[in-house]
Amino acid sequence: MTAHDHGKWGCACWGAEDELGAANLLTPAKRLAALKSIETGKVYDLSHVFGTDAPYMAPNQTPFLMMMWSSWRDSIRRRRKHGMTNDAGSNVERIEMTAHVGTHIDALGHVSKGDRLYNGFDAAETLTEWGLSRLGIERTPPMITRGVLLDVAGLDGGPHLAPGRVVTPEELARAAEAAGVTIEPGDFALIRTGWGRYFGTDNARYLAGSPGIDVPAAQWLTAQGVTAIGADNMALEVLPNPDPAKALPVHQHCLAEAGVHIIENLMLEELAADKVARFCLIVLPPKMRGATGAPVRPVAIV
Amino acid sequence: MTAHDHGKWGCACWGAEDELGAANLLTPAKRLAALKSIETGKVYDLSHVFGTDAPYMAPNQTPFLMMMWSSWRDSIRRRRKHGMTNDAGSNVERIEMTAHVGTHIDALGHVSKGDRLYNGFDAAETLTEWGLSRLGIERTPPMITRGVLLDVAGLDGGPHLAPGRVVTPEELARAAEAAGVTIEPGDFALIRTGWGRYFGTDNARYLAGSPGIDVPAAQWLTAQGVTAIGADNMALEVLPNPDPAKALPVHQHCLAEAGVHIIENLMLEELAADKVARFCLIVLPPKMRGATGAPVRPVAIV
Amino acid sequence: MTAHDHGKWGCACWGAEDELGAANLLTPAKRLAALKSIETGKVYDLSHVFGTDAPYMAPNQTPFLMMMWSSWRDSIRRRRKHGMTNDAGSNVERIEMTAHVGTHIDALGHVSKGDRLYNGFDAAETLTEWGLSRLGIERTPPMITRGVLLDVAGLDGGPHLAPGRVVTPEELARAAEAAGVTIEPGDFALIRTGWGRYFGTDNARYLAGSPGIDVPAAQWLTAQGVTAIGADNMALEVLPNPDPAKALPVHQHCLAEAGVHIIENLMLEELAADKVARFCLIVLPPKMRGATGAPVRPVAIV
Amino acid sequence: MTAHDHGKWGCACWGAEDELGAANLLTPAKRLAALKSIETGKVYDLSHVFGTDAPYMAPNQTPFLMMMWSSWRDSIRRRRKHGMTNDAGSNVERIEMTAHVGTHIDALGHVSKGDRLYNGFDAAETLTEWGLSRLGIERTPPMITRGVLLDVAGLDGGPHLAPGRVVTPEELARAAEAAGVTIEPGDFALIRTGWGRYFGTDNARYLAGSPGIDVPAAQWLTAQGVTAIGADNMALEVLPNPDPAKALPVHQHCLAEAGVHIIENLMLEELAADKVARFCLIVLPPKMRGATGAPVRPVAIV
Repeated sequence: MTAHDHGKWGCACWGAEDELGAANLLTPAKRLAALKSIETGKVYDLSHVFGTDAPYMAPNQTPFLMMMWSSWRDSIRRRRKHGMTNDAGSNVERIEMTAHVGTHIDALGHVSKGDRLYNGFDAAETLTEWGLSRLGIERTPPMITRGVLLDVAGLDGGPHLAPGRVVTPEELARAAEAAGVTIEPGDFALIRTGWGRYFGTDNARYLAGSPGIDVPAAQWLTAQGVTAIGADNMALEVLPNPDPAKALPVHQHCLAEAGVHIIENLMLEELAADKVARFCLIVLPPKMRGATGAPVRPVAIV
Repeated sequence: MTAHDHGKWGCACWGAEDELGAANLLTPAKRLAALKSIETGKVYDLSHVFGTDAPYMAPNQTPFLMMMWSSWRDSIRRRRKHGMTNDAGSNVERIEMTAHVGTHIDALGHVSKGDRLYNGFDAAETLTEWGLSRLGIERTPPMITRGVLLDVAGLDGGPHLAPGRVVTPEELARAAEAAGVTIEPGDFALIRTGWGRYFGTDNARYLAGSPGIDVPAAQWLTAQGVTAIGADNMALEVLPNPDPAKALPVHQHCLAEAGVHIIENLMLEELAADKVARFCLIVLPPKMRGATGAPVRPVAIV
Repeated sequence: MTAHDHGKWGCACWGAEDELGAANLLTPAKRLAALKSIETGKVYDLSHVFGTDAPYMAPNQTPFLMMMWSSWRDSIRRRRKHGMTNDAGSNVERIEMTAHVGTHIDALGHVSKGDRLYNGFDAAETLTEWGLSRLGIERTPPMITRGVLLDVAGLDGGPHLAPGRVVTPEELARAAEAAGVTIEPGDFALIRTGWGRYFGTDNARYLAGSPGIDVPAAQWLTAQGVTAIGADNMALEVLPNPDPAKALPVHQHCLAEAGVHIIENLMLEELAADKVARFCLIVLPPKMRGATGAPVRPVAIV
Repeated sequence: MTAHDHGKWGCACWGAEDELGAANLLTPAKRLAALKSIETGKVYDLSHVFGTDAPYMAPNQTPFLMMMWSSWRDSIRRRRKHGMTNDAGSNVERIEMTAHVGTHIDALGHVSKGDRLYNGFDAAETLTEWGLSRLGIERTPPMITRGVLLDVAGLDGGPHLAPGRVVTPEELARAAEAAGVTIEPGDFALIRTGWGRYFGTDNARYLAGSPGIDVPAAQWLTAQGVTAIGADNMALEVLPNPDPAKALPVHQHCLAEAGVHIIENLMLEELAADKVARFCLIVLPPKMRGATGAPVRPVAIV
């Protein structure tokens, strides 16, 4: 297929029942090429450690909470009562979270365009009380493909772009050119704004606004056949949107129109410092049935 | 180092502050060799889809629960009130879970031997109200290494071993021999009992007891320097333990004594059907601060 | 007003903005009369103790869960670190529950008739993501009024009515007659089926079906002006409904049509044993904003 | 008994197994006298409405959270699938809270003195993973007794006392004298500081500090045999404590030493405005097994 064949609303590139979207571009050949490109085996860990102090946008939604269900002490006492004497103490916690905490991936069913989700699926029929019946994160395949770093912050020259600063298609093209990279179908594009340094270190700043792409930049990427897009900020897209009548338009385009997965809250400093522009990128989301996303631990390997 | 140097309680192989345990054996050379062994790029997804119906052992601990925080409908209505007209509807859920649901990895701090965790860390000092201050899952590095399948069920001839059936060191040795595999330091050993077929299909049966290894089999593996052990059952070890005075002795040995991570609830049928005994195994746990484990999506690549 | 003036759908007895329903009948005179009727001050506690083992009807909704947030030990340690030396240890738990656990009251906004709640309020406008904007339990006034016991089980002669047994208006009338009671506007009617003995002692039986009233019996009560109706079973009404095409029709009539509150899971054995048919009934629901009900501890005083 | 017989640590006034403490003073005679004192039946509702915006002291403990489990829309759709056509829509929420949110009562097991709870019960033996095995709120009887208002703010002349202002025994005595009240065994003392006006209206101010009693004032009350003490502030006692080495010393004295229940976050403005100093006070805590407290809706009746 050519790059322009997909990414159109209702294009039905991959059939009326398709739930993979641009993840269809993760072909065996693409994957093998990415794996074969590995030379040294050096691993870049692109995720943040997160906990109850994780930054999060939505008011009233606790992003993450952890409490102990059972401590070693409690379980030893309980097991002794049942006659067990080897004193195996189990520490087990209760975790409460949204699927969009820390470094995480958005499932295609996360954002709608009106009443429609990706591939035209009806939101009212798809969303049940207990999650998505289609387009949940368990449908996302293991993502093992070529990753490319578009270091817009590096191109800009400062440690990070300013909050609210729109990243344009032209800048993405220049960042690719500067790195000697041509985006190809099935690539996973990572965009560095430099904003990731405030994750967990200055959450108020991290959340008050952020640099990011707007719809034209997203369209430029999806038109070239990227399978997914990630960034080192809260929502991939610029916040707040320059047009106050628009909420999350980049999410709408990527997820609902183009079937392109999004990864947020990445940590891209080390890749940039080492000037690594091409790598094998691996993202393995846990298969929580019907979830609209999942925390992940993406790694780049060179 | 030689294989017998680690795995002893208090051996201090890796220093008094070490929190990695046998994951120290994940050397760059080991990783690169595993990646270089990939020939076709075929991926085996070794995890189950899980949800509120996930099997779980502990009474009173909800394994997994998902509710919608926000539906596309609610968020469109709310955004319209704020003047946003592009009707981006966000589906966002609340997830409640333990770290030990579905296919998951145990952090080294999950189980104690009396008041001591791995490397002699004092459990009372390590476990805080909000999780582990040491040995939490965020300390576990990306695991990319050689995996070996020890297909004990295949050796046995039936679809699965009987519940309560102890897997011995001799059987592991025979399964390795049958597959032409020699276990090497840093390997990730996967043990197939065939019990995984009941995960989610017959939870009562899955939980009522299971085949699995006992301490001698675990010691046989750790003495050979495995970095981690996984199995297609609830707890890796045989349940119930033949000695009623012992609770989770294999967990104690692997986690608290040998510093060897455990992965549970794997799905190994496809690997076995294809008679794949050696592969590149990749496990990437999300870095939840202080958690005693994490759901993961392990993949084997050949 | 006469008894037949209220209880009609859309009757607008109490005005277009009314959120009290038949609780408007809790007049100062009615209340004072109930209080003045007290002779000995003997208190009957009509509620069950409840916990994680509370019976509950809806699958997938945890009725009640309690975990410790903080133990005396944890808080003493933490306070010592802050220089506090009086060793005040705080035990504080986290509670997770529905509003319909244990002995509880239903708010008028709990059940709709199609898209309409009590007094014709539009359900879509009333229910927000965070609860009811009208008809929530915080609108329910302190209920202090005359209670009457209709001991249908006593009339029947056995320890309890059979599960699925419909209690008819005629039986209610006979029970009132047997006790020498005439129902008056503002009364709080308690119906004894004897089923309460299985709450917490045999939950499977308690939930598998229960004796209770059907719509005609409910209509008979609301036509006489009761302010609320309670019973010693899971849902006041007979379960399952004899007409399989009807779900919770008594709830619809009482809450959505007649504006009559419902109390469930009462314990009425002691009242019946003492043959107490009239009493001062006090129900004081905690004012949780927007909640569809609340656990309560009703008492009868004579 | 004389007033000074109780309130001593280990006094064993009410026996080695006693879990009621000063609630033993709620005798039938005391209760009947309170009920008989009612003249007009006018009810004062002494509680705040509370929700997710409730003020709360402990960091990391969500005080209250409400989400919808089921909406009328979801349940109608589900029931139609099962052939039910009467369109009964159920609104049911999930509530998450501590027992110490809004207007609430503390159970005697809430606070320890070192490793000891009220009546010398060992905290380690009493606190289980799932709550208190003794001294939980389900042991607290219905509280129906004489209440007295000690309007310290009224005595002071301003709308409220200053934050951090200690209320002394002398002031309590003067407030009682000004109201013409003599405290008697079994009375429920309510202390008005005026601080309640900031609950929910200015939480930051409400929590930053508050006027309240210190240990001598608490001892003065318990020595006179009060069954419980309530106040219109966060913690009854002055915050922060003037002695920085003391955490919650009034809680320790009342709960752990004297067996006197505490009610917090009361709303006493209306009582004070009407200059009501004596009344029948009714507090009916839901019987949540093992809980360290419970939200309540106290009412005063005159």
